[in-house]
Amino acid sequence: MHFHDFSSHKAVAKLTALAREPHDLTAADGLTAQRISAFKTSFCGFDLLYGTQRVTSETLDALQELADEAGLITAIKAMKQGAVLNRLEGYACENRQVLHTACRDVFEDPSQELDASAKAKQELAKLRGFLDDLADGKIVNAQGQPFTTMVQVGIGGSDLGPRALYLALKAYNLPTRSARFIANVDPDDVAEVLQELDLPQTLFNIVSKSGTTLETLTNERLVRGALIQAGLEPARHLVAVTGEGSPMDDAAKYLRSFYMYDYIGGRYSATSMVGAVTLGFALGFDAVMELLRGAHEVDLAAEQLDIRANIPLLLAMLGIWNHNFLGHATLAVLPYSQALSRFPAHLQQCDMESNGKSVTRQGAAVGWQTGPVVWGEPGTNGQHAFYQLIHQGTEVVPVEFVGFRHNQYGRDLEVEGTSSQQKLIANMLAQSLALALGKEDDNPARSFPGNRPNSVLMADRLTPRTMGALLAIYEHRIAFQGFCWNINSFDQEGVQLGKVLASRLLRVLAKGSGSAGEGSMEEIMLQQSGML
Amino acid sequence: MHFHDFSSHKAVAKLTALAREPHDLTAADGLTAQRISAFKTSFCGFDLLYGTQRVTSETLDALQELADEAGLITAIKAMKQGAVLNRLEGYACENRQVLHTACRDVFEDPSQELDASAKAKQELAKLRGFLDDLADGKIVNAQGQPFTTMVQVGIGGSDLGPRALYLALKAYNLPTRSARFIANVDPDDVAEVLQELDLPQTLFNIVSKSGTTLETLTNERLVRGALIQAGLEPARHLVAVTGEGSPMDDAAKYLRSFYMYDYIGGRYSATSMVGAVTLGFALGFDAVMELLRGAHEVDLAAEQLDIRANIPLLLAMLGIWNHNFLGHATLAVLPYSQALSRFPAHLQQCDMESNGKSVTRQGAAVGWQTGPVVWGEPGTNGQHAFYQLIHQGTEVVPVEFVGFRHNQYGRDLEVEGTSSQQKLIANMLAQSLALALGKEDDNPARSFPGNRPNSVLMADRLTPRTMGALLAIYEHRIAFQGFCWNINSFDQEGVQLGKVLASRLLRVLAKGSGSAGEGSMEEIMLQQSGML
Repeated sequence: MHFHDFSSHKAVAKLTALAREPHDLTAADGLTAQRISAFKTSFCGFDLLYGTQRVTSETLDALQELADEAGLITAIKAMKQGAVLNRLEGYACENRQVLHTACRDVFEDPSQELDASAKAKQELAKLRGFLDDLADGKIVNAQGQPFTTMVQVGIGGSDLGPRALYLALKAYNLPTRSARFIANVDPDDVAEVLQELDLPQTLFNIVSKSGTTLETLTNERLVRGALIQAGLEPARHLVAVTGEGSPMDDAAKYLRSFYMYDYIGGRYSATSMVGAVTLGFALGFDAVMELLRGAHEVDLAAEQLDIRANIPLLLAMLGIWNHNFLGHATLAVLPYSQALSRFPAHLQQCDMESNGKSVTRQGAAVGWQTGPVVWGEPGTNGQHAFYQLIHQGTEVVPVEFVGFRHNQYGRDLEVEGTSSQQKLIANMLAQSLALALGKEDDNPARSFPGNRPNSVLMADRLTPRTMGALLAIYEHRIAFQGFCWNINSFDQEGVQLGKVLASRLLRVLAKGSGSAGEGSMEEIMLQQSGML
Repeated sequence: MHFHDFSSHKAVAKLTALAREPHDLTAADGLTAQRISAFKTSFCGFDLLYGTQRVTSETLDALQELADEAGLITAIKAMKQGAVLNRLEGYACENRQVLHTACRDVFEDPSQELDASAKAKQELAKLRGFLDDLADGKIVNAQGQPFTTMVQVGIGGSDLGPRALYLALKAYNLPTRSARFIANVDPDDVAEVLQELDLPQTLFNIVSKSGTTLETLTNERLVRGALIQAGLEPARHLVAVTGEGSPMDDAAKYLRSFYMYDYIGGRYSATSMVGAVTLGFALGFDAVMELLRGAHEVDLAAEQLDIRANIPLLLAMLGIWNHNFLGHATLAVLPYSQALSRFPAHLQQCDMESNGKSVTRQGAAVGWQTGPVVWGEPGTNGQHAFYQLIHQGTEVVPVEFVGFRHNQYGRDLEVEGTSSQQKLIANMLAQSLALALGKEDDNPARSFPGNRPNSVLMADRLTPRTMGALLAIYEHRIAFQGFCWNINSFDQEGVQLGKVLASRLLRVLAKGSGSAGEGSMEEIMLQQSGML
């Protein structure tokens, strides 16, 4: 598996030329019925409408060429089969496989990477046993009562993905089961959650691969303190998700330990035990399997070479067109689904931590833009907030809309001849058209330039299965882009410097070793901020 | 009050020249003790550390000149005194005053705009009476029980600001009082909130200035239906915040109506009854007055001409430096406070809806960048997510950090010699330094370029008063920037086109008037999305 510089591909020159005059959606025949039907792809239960992007068939052909030249499908296949893709040639690095797909490669025999899938099945079997024991009343609190709440204590990948999925699927919670999340080292985060809990009926799920994450260990201590203060035995209320053999893999301290492995990056870990334990507690084991099945279907379908038939690949290439060739710095992901309220925050991590890089796989400085700033909030809420800038601002913001034809709860009402769900989706489609088409007006403040690129991703209903598919679509979109930019999307060296400096500041605050000498930058910042 | 084009100011040429070689924070003497102390401003309980911005004294002098030339202080004074600043010269427009400051100009006599402040006092007196009646048991449910929950039903400005403030101040809730929020037309938003409520003890606060907002009226119908289904009388459970004389100003349908006025834009309405009713219910009347007092102190202090002594003005000018002169497309606001988790979402609306414009106050196309994309999530969570891109990505993201020296709940724990609160703030300061200083390393993946501009805004503790001040600091920063860019920050014409197209799609779905003819763009989108 060899990767080449983005700028070295012949298709890049072709796309640069095409970008001088991108398709004009505001022209008389810029967005026709034929175009809308032609620029549509169906894939794993989702439809993607992308006629509202600034592309022609010629652009798509060139993007296909780029995908082929960059060997994106070869790369994703190698990834799933266990190639060591988390590496930098010739430099110290994590040097690991990238095998989050193995977590859901548990339906076929043989699986693509035998060892990782075997471990995944083992953990799933442990989870099933644990959930059965909870359901059968074999695991109860000291008073013999069942547990009703699970609080996940984790941060970053051990928080954002599981939280986003939990909120997305809350409508399917088992009766009497729910979950909460604690992430921040801010002590008010723990305090606020703790004061709303019925502690005796609460399980805490402590999640840290290394077993050494500062925030998580600190919050675990706060949780243990609260349990002891309430006269409860921590070992009866805590479970752990951690690396095998980590300091947290300790049967004396935890009711159960579930394992995660080095070859699964935090931001790609939602379908490992990192997400599965809390989701299993809240939704039941079958829902977890449905989630995995949805993701697995996408893992397979993402091997198609044709960008017009492969939604994650197509989204990757359209994103590259908008970012590298049309020059747009950000990407808004706007779900028309309140349940997906935290999905953009998960993507923000998954995308920006993966592709916010400046060094090629060979250790050279990149000479092209890598990952954009990814952000978003649910519609229709956003329409009453930041959409003003998207329609009429001086920054052009490419948009990915996500929506569903049916609601989750089945509670709806017709007002003026349409249901709320119809209003929701009509608004999403209207925004897509409005951004693309624009509108001229004699009043300059009421003119819309149009040509704001966007696409619409739709499925029937947000269920565990479609959620799994949606998650995998985005995971692969991100991986494809990283391969194409010739960067390592699977490390995160950029978080280290802040950690080192924070340790020095804390040493000054603890008046400890004094290794940050008097007059050091750290001491000055602390003094001027009023912390010293 | 006359506004001139941004590009016409002499200081703009000077700043363009300075931007060719911005201050190098990574140089040997780029960030000294002296610099950190010198580039610090204290203002209304907040300290701003901005030595980590790419500015010299010369840059600051030029930014001062720009602020003076553009008449920013004259403009904000005129705004507070009732000038008609929500207008476009020579074109149809809202043509209104901009008087959110009058909501908190209730402590001095005379106030700056007599009529608006008199109305604000009147509404505050009504609110006090309502809250007293709730406390005294004069307002109870049909069973004689007190109300424990208020659900605010609103969207955009009637949701984001109040929700952000409620979460920020939840630690100070009255015992037995809490609030929830419903915004989205997504029927699952209502369904999820309703299923968790004790309906008999719940009040619904329906907020819509016009009394005609689609989402809010639809959700009100869903709420009324649920109340009736539960055998409850809606008029006993609903209060309204709306324009005087709007369709919602109806004593037969609501327990109480509180008024908001045309001269207060939705995104600037958090300190009007739009925020005050729910906050008053949850926190009590005195906390609302503290919030207003904090905002009012900033309203007064923001009149200082000296940018080095006026935090909102300084933030405005530093933002213009980063956006217009250094060319950075986005701004991240990163609060190191879990309580401020939704404050960036509020700012996203307030900033992007205000300044996402392309037309000058005289109706010409702007020839310069206006508002950036504003986004953010709380630290330390973000450190484990998107900070990778901020440190090492190809997009440079200016950052505004916000933090507090003390926590809210008073529950904390020392681990390894420091408290969680100390860890939280040490991490914030470390990030500020790391972004500015960078670090060279032989391993290219472990090199940090530095020179990533940022500032740190700190206060002692997040209380109703500091929250009011923080809100007003940002409101004025946004207004100053809009004045400087010669745009109208107070209208939102960009939301109209989407509304019109959504109505057409809904007419097709309702198979109604047929005004969207067969084969129309709307019908095609609906067909292709599978909604028809």
